[in-house]
Amino acid sequence: MVTLNDIAAKLGISKSTVSKGLNNASDVSEELRRKILETATELGYIGRRGPKKLCILIENMGYQDPNQFGYDLIAGFQEMARPEGWAVDVVPLTEEYQRTITYQQFMAQGRWRGAFVLGFSLLDPWMEEFRTAQIPTVLYDNRIKENPCMASVGCDSTSGLGAAVRHLCSLGHRRIGLLCGPLESYVLKERYNAYINAMAECGLPVDEELIGMGYYVAESTRTYLPKLIEKGATAILCSDDSRAVAAYTECRDRRLNIPEAVSIVGFDDLPIAAYMNPPLTTIRQDRPALGKCGYYALSCLLNEVDIDSIHLRAPLIVRGSTGPAPERGTPQPEQPEKEALLLWQRNMTAV
Amino acid sequence: MVTLNDIAAKLGISKSTVSKGLNNASDVSEELRRKILETATELGYIGRRGPKKLCILIENMGYQDPNQFGYDLIAGFQEMARPEGWAVDVVPLTEEYQRTITYQQFMAQGRWRGAFVLGFSLLDPWMEEFRTAQIPTVLYDNRIKENPCMASVGCDSTSGLGAAVRHLCSLGHRRIGLLCGPLESYVLKERYNAYINAMAECGLPVDEELIGMGYYVAESTRTYLPKLIEKGATAILCSDDSRAVAAYTECRDRRLNIPEAVSIVGFDDLPIAAYMNPPLTTIRQDRPALGKCGYYALSCLLNEVDIDSIHLRAPLIVRGSTGPAPERGTPQPEQPEKEALLLWQRNMTAV
Repeated sequence: MVTLNDIAAKLGISKSTVSKGLNNASDVSEELRRKILETATELGYIGRRGPKKLCILIENMGYQDPNQFGYDLIAGFQEMARPEGWAVDVVPLTEEYQRTITYQQFMAQGRWRGAFVLGFSLLDPWMEEFRTAQIPTVLYDNRIKENPCMASVGCDSTSGLGAAVRHLCSLGHRRIGLLCGPLESYVLKERYNAYINAMAECGLPVDEELIGMGYYVAESTRTYLPKLIEKGATAILCSDDSRAVAAYTECRDRRLNIPEAVSIVGFDDLPIAAYMNPPLTTIRQDRPALGKCGYYALSCLLNEVDIDSIHLRAPLIVRGSTGPAPERGTPQPEQPEKEALLLWQRNMTAV
Repeated sequence: MVTLNDIAAKLGISKSTVSKGLNNASDVSEELRRKILETATELGYIGRRGPKKLCILIENMGYQDPNQFGYDLIAGFQEMARPEGWAVDVVPLTEEYQRTITYQQFMAQGRWRGAFVLGFSLLDPWMEEFRTAQIPTVLYDNRIKENPCMASVGCDSTSGLGAAVRHLCSLGHRRIGLLCGPLESYVLKERYNAYINAMAECGLPVDEELIGMGYYVAESTRTYLPKLIEKGATAILCSDDSRAVAAYTECRDRRLNIPEAVSIVGFDDLPIAAYMNPPLTTIRQDRPALGKCGYYALSCLLNEVDIDSIHLRAPLIVRGSTGPAPERGTPQPEQPEKEALLLWQRNMTAV
């Protein structure tokens, strides 16, 4: 068993200085405190001893309201962790903050034995450190292949998007567009590829003009939805339900009836989805179950079981926002874009 | 809640006849008993009521001895299931038996609420029924994509085999052979593809003459090992440790020293692997953990959580059976096969 003495001996300082460093005492310099934390982590003092504490690190994801994606994820995790005696801290993060401290130091400082990481993008500074960090960590919708301290939890996007494209295809849709978040995300890359593959499997050509991507949901939907419609999309897949909500707004503003003029499919099945008008056809992510699986995977890692991944199914929930494809051809490319759009809108609103 | 009366009403028979049918009474005809069981399953009478019983169905896999693959899988499953009040029956099966009864009837008859299925091949009669069966079922090393009542548990063969090929490549091996079970198995197909991909990633050509497949371990190893050696293989990957044990026997009989003349890599890390002479380099499957994950996945399905898959990592465990590649070129095809082999053996034993 590693003790304060071991850390002190390794650093050539006194036991009381080590203790002060670990407890953030003000008379220990920042540099020394970092060294103490690093040595404590390296020797395994932090991670196996100390309080039974875990943390949920969250970024790019709302979680305070039941209609936000993170809410049920966290609730599911806590439902499993608490009966087993774990305290769980929820810590919102930013890229900027990650640049001020290493992941290993951050975890040592909070004395958390493991983390469940939500909403990180591939650009987050700690993603690089995750390749080597020696702390049990479960990533939702991200994957670090090389490091056995890291496990993944998520939904199988491929089969869900496959089912959605087949559903639209069976309703006569041929030009199916995609409104997607940016590809600096492991899971959005996966969904993008799943869309491409599903289109190919249904024998539908992929047209880059039918794909619109952007980080900011409302803005990018406002930019791309009219472009997709103009290019002949009769159905639009959204990479998340928030984007589908934004698409409803754009369709209403443009007097495009859903699903008569355009079918919309979401991804997530947030609580609001069933109560939209019309109710949203979407691909369900069982968020409480994902949170529970996150805890299960973390408890495996904490018990030295080399878990790699847990995936849930993501079933298509068919509701009122998808219907038969309206009859219309691909717009002629020689027609000026704005005119085509105006013409198109007129046709649609006349229905 | 479904009652005996509901089953009786649906079939137009008396409640007591239903009860007799469910209890295998001799005065109920076989045909009527089947109808009763099917209706009981369909209405959900069986599956939610009755004793807390699960079963482990096992085929093509030893499990009675700690050195057999199934032993720890079953132990891990039971270790989780028993404290939660489940009785677990282990039922060995054959293809022939599967042809005499449907899976649904079999499960209804035993009053099991769910099953953990080990060792099934793609040719097993029930594999087809698994596509539609409405019984919570977890398949080890098999996958049924379409049916949300089915989940998969297994190891990530891809990264394990990738690590093995890279390891051999770093030791100078270029001609790496494969001794593999038959491809009528989901997981062996996966391992076969992982071998092909790993070779390509290391820039090594795949030579069909370096691949030997067969169901019967000793016989197929006796047939293929000399052929692979003759064709210039300096290292051989085996799709399971039993095959590696057989390869040791063949090498000893042919006076090929391991690893000087040929490197051998197994897959599984059975308890015996570490005690072989030389100790076997192999890809580890954590069998107790796989059994526990099997129970976890089944408990998800029983609680209506749409779990799709759980995968563990399969790390490469480097021991003494792999070493630097011996220096030799690809044998000349114009040389008579037997002569080349004899020459080869002479060279090797002279070392």
